[in-house]
Amino acid sequence: MSYSWPEGKRAAFVFSVDVDIESPMLWRMRGQEIRGFGELEQRRYGERVGLKRLLALQAELGIKASYYVPGYEAEQYDWILPTLQGQGHEVGLHGYYHELVNQLSPAENAEVLDKSIAVFEKQLGVTPKGYRSPAWELTQELPEQLKERGVVYDSSLMGYDHPYTVNGLTEIPVQWLLDDAIYFKFSGGGLDKWYPPSPYMVLESWLEEWEAIYETGGLFMLTVHPWVSGKGQRIRMLRRLVEEVQGRSDVWLATAQELAEHHQGSANSFEVSLTPPDTRF
Amino acid sequence: MSYSWPEGKRAAFVFSVDVDIESPMLWRMRGQEIRGFGELEQRRYGERVGLKRLLALQAELGIKASYYVPGYEAEQYDWILPTLQGQGHEVGLHGYYHELVNQLSPAENAEVLDKSIAVFEKQLGVTPKGYRSPAWELTQELPEQLKERGVVYDSSLMGYDHPYTVNGLTEIPVQWLLDDAIYFKFSGGGLDKWYPPSPYMVLESWLEEWEAIYETGGLFMLTVHPWVSGKGQRIRMLRRLVEEVQGRSDVWLATAQELAEHHQGSANSFEVSLTPPDTRF
Amino acid sequence: MSYSWPEGKRAAFVFSVDVDIESPMLWRMRGQEIRGFGELEQRRYGERVGLKRLLALQAELGIKASYYVPGYEAEQYDWILPTLQGQGHEVGLHGYYHELVNQLSPAENAEVLDKSIAVFEKQLGVTPKGYRSPAWELTQELPEQLKERGVVYDSSLMGYDHPYTVNGLTEIPVQWLLDDAIYFKFSGGGLDKWYPPSPYMVLESWLEEWEAIYETGGLFMLTVHPWVSGKGQRIRMLRRLVEEVQGRSDVWLATAQELAEHHQGSANSFEVSLTPPDTRF
Amino acid sequence: MSYSWPEGKRAAFVFSVDVDIESPMLWRMRGQEIRGFGELEQRRYGERVGLKRLLALQAELGIKASYYVPGYEAEQYDWILPTLQGQGHEVGLHGYYHELVNQLSPAENAEVLDKSIAVFEKQLGVTPKGYRSPAWELTQELPEQLKERGVVYDSSLMGYDHPYTVNGLTEIPVQWLLDDAIYFKFSGGGLDKWYPPSPYMVLESWLEEWEAIYETGGLFMLTVHPWVSGKGQRIRMLRRLVEEVQGRSDVWLATAQELAEHHQGSANSFEVSLTPPDTRF
Repeated sequence: MSYSWPEGKRAAFVFSVDVDIESPMLWRMRGQEIRGFGELEQRRYGERVGLKRLLALQAELGIKASYYVPGYEAEQYDWILPTLQGQGHEVGLHGYYHELVNQLSPAENAEVLDKSIAVFEKQLGVTPKGYRSPAWELTQELPEQLKERGVVYDSSLMGYDHPYTVNGLTEIPVQWLLDDAIYFKFSGGGLDKWYPPSPYMVLESWLEEWEAIYETGGLFMLTVHPWVSGKGQRIRMLRRLVEEVQGRSDVWLATAQELAEHHQGSANSFEVSLTPPDTRF
Repeated sequence: MSYSWPEGKRAAFVFSVDVDIESPMLWRMRGQEIRGFGELEQRRYGERVGLKRLLALQAELGIKASYYVPGYEAEQYDWILPTLQGQGHEVGLHGYYHELVNQLSPAENAEVLDKSIAVFEKQLGVTPKGYRSPAWELTQELPEQLKERGVVYDSSLMGYDHPYTVNGLTEIPVQWLLDDAIYFKFSGGGLDKWYPPSPYMVLESWLEEWEAIYETGGLFMLTVHPWVSGKGQRIRMLRRLVEEVQGRSDVWLATAQELAEHHQGSANSFEVSLTPPDTRF
Repeated sequence: MSYSWPEGKRAAFVFSVDVDIESPMLWRMRGQEIRGFGELEQRRYGERVGLKRLLALQAELGIKASYYVPGYEAEQYDWILPTLQGQGHEVGLHGYYHELVNQLSPAENAEVLDKSIAVFEKQLGVTPKGYRSPAWELTQELPEQLKERGVVYDSSLMGYDHPYTVNGLTEIPVQWLLDDAIYFKFSGGGLDKWYPPSPYMVLESWLEEWEAIYETGGLFMLTVHPWVSGKGQRIRMLRRLVEEVQGRSDVWLATAQELAEHHQGSANSFEVSLTPPDTRF
Repeated sequence: MSYSWPEGKRAAFVFSVDVDIESPMLWRMRGQEIRGFGELEQRRYGERVGLKRLLALQAELGIKASYYVPGYEAEQYDWILPTLQGQGHEVGLHGYYHELVNQLSPAENAEVLDKSIAVFEKQLGVTPKGYRSPAWELTQELPEQLKERGVVYDSSLMGYDHPYTVNGLTEIPVQWLLDDAIYFKFSGGGLDKWYPPSPYMVLESWLEEWEAIYETGGLFMLTVHPWVSGKGQRIRMLRRLVEEVQGRSDVWLATAQELAEHHQGSANSFEVSLTPPDTRF
């Protein structure tokens, strides 16, 4: 049983960007004083340089991306949301302080959603349609909470290689393998656990995954971060990857929101429900 | 002193699958509430997609595999055992909740065995002949406990490169090097310790190991997991590996149970006893 | 908006050396007895052999480097500062005991600066113009404290790919990717977290980064340590890297101090201020 | 100032083997019960298979190696010492239970030495001339303690790339980069921190290091462990490495003891003293 894509397409490719600048660090350090600026300056590079390079690359390649922006970053750097929208990219929610949703109560998660949506409405005049949870977690309540607020899809889970439906909400799945941060994010002081590999190793792995996804008719959900992949060698690697993908006419390069709309209007089912397993034994 | 394989064969290859879906996570989180569905959905992919892809690959390659299924997964997803048996694969025990046997008392291990065997007997009408312990541990009591229940071999230890005998029970050894999870399993939140390498690196390492095992007349015990290797690039890598192995006519591609039967009927000895060393010093 | 280099140059390359011998270990072990000499001897190799090999390599390549020397090492091994100066290299500050500045109070950081500067003045007769903080951290007070003492630039942050200005002080940025220690530093006893990769992997990654930096007109700030890169295979790798860089006539190979002087005399702005984010939420 | 090797030789190569079977695990688990046999069986492979393969490889290559054997292993597996000696290899001390010497008092270290030497004297009739400390640590007292017992060299430190003298005792240095365990040792249960790389990566790194050591006239001290490198792909890799080294006639392939004798009879100095740095600040 394979997934049905729009007429003439056999696989899909989404270029997504999680615009985490300072917020994950602030969340980690909440209530503590930050005395060192090493990691902060490294992260702020993402706003100063990295994000602009990603936008330039996408313009050069003629590709529309899906950007997920924490409310805090959108307020702090208020050129971001209007610029992304102005260049035709999709913008979606990504927490306020990049909070881990499974560490918050349902009421707290609702509050974070409301606060973040208010930023988007104020800056863009529209309610975002897409949601990607920080660190790719989801609670049982979130699908309902998202639907109540007009959000039409989530993009945080890995239960299939193509769109599916989770507690009645469309899911545009992600994949750790295709996230830049697990390879390239490196901060000192023991924060990170390994050295960055050569970008050729990652490109080799991603192209091999792309062959497999193309073959099986799935979705290649690329996820990058401005402070990680907005740097030199990675921009070059991303160019090569996208050019390879664009070389095949039966690939659907689209935003996550376009995929969600297709999913909702198609005969594809793939429904699952988020039921917690019994751990009392 | 080298191991004697059936007439005309100089080395053996077993394709084994440890069907861990949710159980290792439930065991790790027992007594705690699971509020996030990130890892769970990633694991459930193993049942929804990965296991089916592995079965399709094995059918394509004409190979019979040895599947080890925790009792919990077999009950939760009751299509699994009958389907595996129906397609001619071997099915063996793998704990109930993927419990670590060296953390349980002998009585608790006996209880887990009885509970798991009951699931197999109910769903398949037969008692399994093979056992692979979760996380590849074994206690001193287990060989006897397994024999008492009609199990004829264990496949969890690494004391030789070919079948041997442990406390009177046949052992079909495994090897960390040839396990997919140590390379490719990746969950977020700091659970995992490294990024997945390119599948070409792993294939290179496995093919080199295969050359050495072929040369020395040993057993290549491949072990994969549906949620890890049931994904795109790894299916392609496994196809290449098996095709290489199948290219030599003097290789015995068989199930672990077939190897155990050969061992028991052969003149091979290689007996060891599990005696605990003295750590009071 | 791109960075303006001196006439005829489109990118810059600095070969920097952080001369940490024992001091980071002493800082880590302060107040404790050191009974084992394994790590100490490994580090002392840096002074006995590694530093001399780096100097020989730079002489062979005809390149002037920027050396940052902790006060403790300068006092302990008093041939170092005069020799570096005598061979035309730049020497700058690097803490006294390689102290982490964000773990010290402003008064303690001032004391460390004074104590270190005194060593330089005594041994060289001049006040150093450059500062690189141990472990690449910086507090909000340090730029002012450095300026008060006649230091004209810092080289510890990652906010841009080229020189910029931080709280009124010139910043010559570094980059984790281009640091030898994150790849090659390896001490036993669980101190380090991964095995050293092949130097070919690192060279491949660095050359790819070099292409990107050359293309975008940035700064390639190489950082090495005598006890890490003063060993065999890495000297060979560094030779290949620098020869590649020297192959292009429009690259400015210079010291960090020369870059700082250019920055101060140019129309480049790129000013940022170190303001701590609010973490009370 | 370069090291002087015997007439006609410009670099040296030692094939050393640390025969750790169970002892490091017993030391780690001392006072605790071992209920699981997973790691034990993996280690015992070293005695059952790995050690024999290393001996066969060395015989095939016509090379004499330096073996360091913990007293516990020598007593437990009493074929080891006589066999090694019988095949012309050097045998040296390596602790009794693979104790970490910097965690023992001087009196305890003396007791371990006496107990280990007694095993060697009983089984071989001679006092060993060489010592390699477990985990490559050394205390300030050990050189004197070793000399008092007739031991003429230590092989545990990394202060030079060639023999030197430490507190009056000859030192034949080791190097983490050239140790098999940091790459290939892998036990489950979170004990190890990374996956084994392809042996081709390690061979590439070692051959590059070999070029550098050959060029600079140093010592390539290879160190392997029977349970780690006595397995398939690594035996093949070691064969390639040694054949490469043997291809040059001006390389001295010798035992560590032969190197120590050369050092003592030569004009080479390179004396250092193990003085603990002051950590009260």
